Amino acid sequence: MFMTGFVSLVGAGPGDPDLLTLRAIRRLEVADLVLYDGLVDPDVVAIAAHAQRFSVGKRARRRSIEQHTINRLMVRSAKRGKRVVRLKSGDPFVLGRGGEEALALTAAGVSFEVIPGVTAAVAAPGLAGVPVTHRGLSSGFLVVSGHAATAYGPLVDGVGPNSMTIVVLMGLSSRAEIASRLIMRGWRPHTPVAVILAAGSKNMHTWIGRLDQLGDVEFDARTGLPGTIVVGDVVGLRPSRNDEGEAGMTAEAAILGGLVRKYGEVTP
Amino acid sequence: MFMTGFVSLVGAGPGDPDLLTLRAIRRLEVADLVLYDGLVDPDVVAIAAHAQRFSVGKRARRRSIEQHTINRLMVRSAKRGKRVVRLKSGDPFVLGRGGEEALALTAAGVSFEVIPGVTAAVAAPGLAGVPVTHRGLSSGFLVVSGHAATAYGPLVDGVGPNSMTIVVLMGLSSRAEIASRLIMRGWRPHTPVAVILAAGSKNMHTWIGRLDQLGDVEFDARTGLPGTIVVGDVVGLRPSRNDEGEAGMTAEAAILGGLVRKYGEVTP
Repeated sequence: MFMTGFVSLVGAGPGDPDLLTLRAIRRLEVADLVLYDGLVDPDVVAIAAHAQRFSVGKRARRRSIEQHTINRLMVRSAKRGKRVVRLKSGDPFVLGRGGEEALALTAAGVSFEVIPGVTAAVAAPGLAGVPVTHRGLSSGFLVVSGHAATAYGPLVDGVGPNSMTIVVLMGLSSRAEIASRLIMRGWRPHTPVAVILAAGSKNMHTWIGRLDQLGDVEFDARTGLPGTIVVGDVVGLRPSRNDEGEAGMTAEAAILGGLVRKYGEVTP
Repeated sequence: MFMTGFVSLVGAGPGDPDLLTLRAIRRLEVADLVLYDGLVDPDVVAIAAHAQRFSVGKRARRRSIEQHTINRLMVRSAKRGKRVVRLKSGDPFVLGRGGEEALALTAAGVSFEVIPGVTAAVAAPGLAGVPVTHRGLSSGFLVVSGHAATAYGPLVDGVGPNSMTIVVLMGLSSRAEIASRLIMRGWRPHTPVAVILAAGSKNMHTWIGRLDQLGDVEFDARTGLPGTIVVGDVVGLRPSRNDEGEAGMTAEAAILGGLVRKYGEVTP
């Protein structure tokens, strides 16, 4: 009998093991080999109790293992009959080179599946109380990678100023360039902005400010926490909360809420 | 003692209960009241075994219960001390009026949390083998609501032709208008397009074609299946699979894969 292995490209969600899907947990539980990104929570990796587990350690600006080595590891292990989980931060097909891994598996004739995950692009704002869409404010959102101006530049340049929500992943170190680029393109300097660090983890931290402040705010880069930047009027909807976790409402949210109630039916 | 209830705005994911998060399952298990969207899978709702469960029945073009009634139900039940789960298809803050519900809860002083879910905007393409981003093809993606031209028009008009992936939710009935709008704006008529029906359910069906075919293809509207439209060159990366589920590769994917390998380092 010819044993064939199988690769699952699995989204680990934004951090907290609680935000894994059931399907991801089931694959981890029976995996023989887990190749995980540097940002995946150790408690998530630990679910694969019976597996060999290797960090393939990709973080912003640093790549411990080349992509082709990861691809080769997956292919070779699957061909030896192993159940391989390629565990990727967020969703496997959002800005994580998951498509390249799928192509490599396809080219090698290895069977695989994609298990979608909770992407930080939506979850980080959500956990911070910011809806990426809202009737009357934004009926869509753009997700871009902030790691290079050649990547995000042409995309954000095309978008009408303040016409929608922009979510930037991996853009903490480009935040000054992104802010000045948008303002130069006509975005209001006072457009509300949120920066969410380590969404869905115990270290989660949210900064709220304006577009013209984004370049100047200091984050401790040494922490290496992943950051999500959200630009757009939806950020003004974020309710304020006191330390007991009770919901309150900022004046700005109240005003915007009023606008939405007033115009919501006219401008869906 | 004053009992206070609590509302969880919960993302149910694209369909299959397997794609729920652990946190969503835990809230459902202890819920007293569940208000669920029409598109949520009955098996997901059934997890809330001890709860009163009401469909608030929103589907495309039909709204059984007015939004303000849903808001009032949540507020009243939470104030009576109930643990309320507002169960929404996909992610609660992606095009589902979750922001309005959050504002209503905030205004009423009711404590709530947001539990992000797997959004169909990413999961539907992913389950069909289409990465929304891919180095050298698209380093970002735009998500829009297709339910009205006033909503998606200004957003897609601003985007440079073939500069990124566009994902349209709730756009099945506007597919002809969307296709001709994009072609008029300079998108290649042969741009590959995927339409994924009922992603993540047993009835999932994927149609692959070109932008200039999108308006003419027939889907059985009576099924009421939710559809996700993906427009962009990334659709060409989708591997073909035979009936045994083994991965194969389309000629188009092979060609695009080659392009990516050749230029991937230059155009991240």
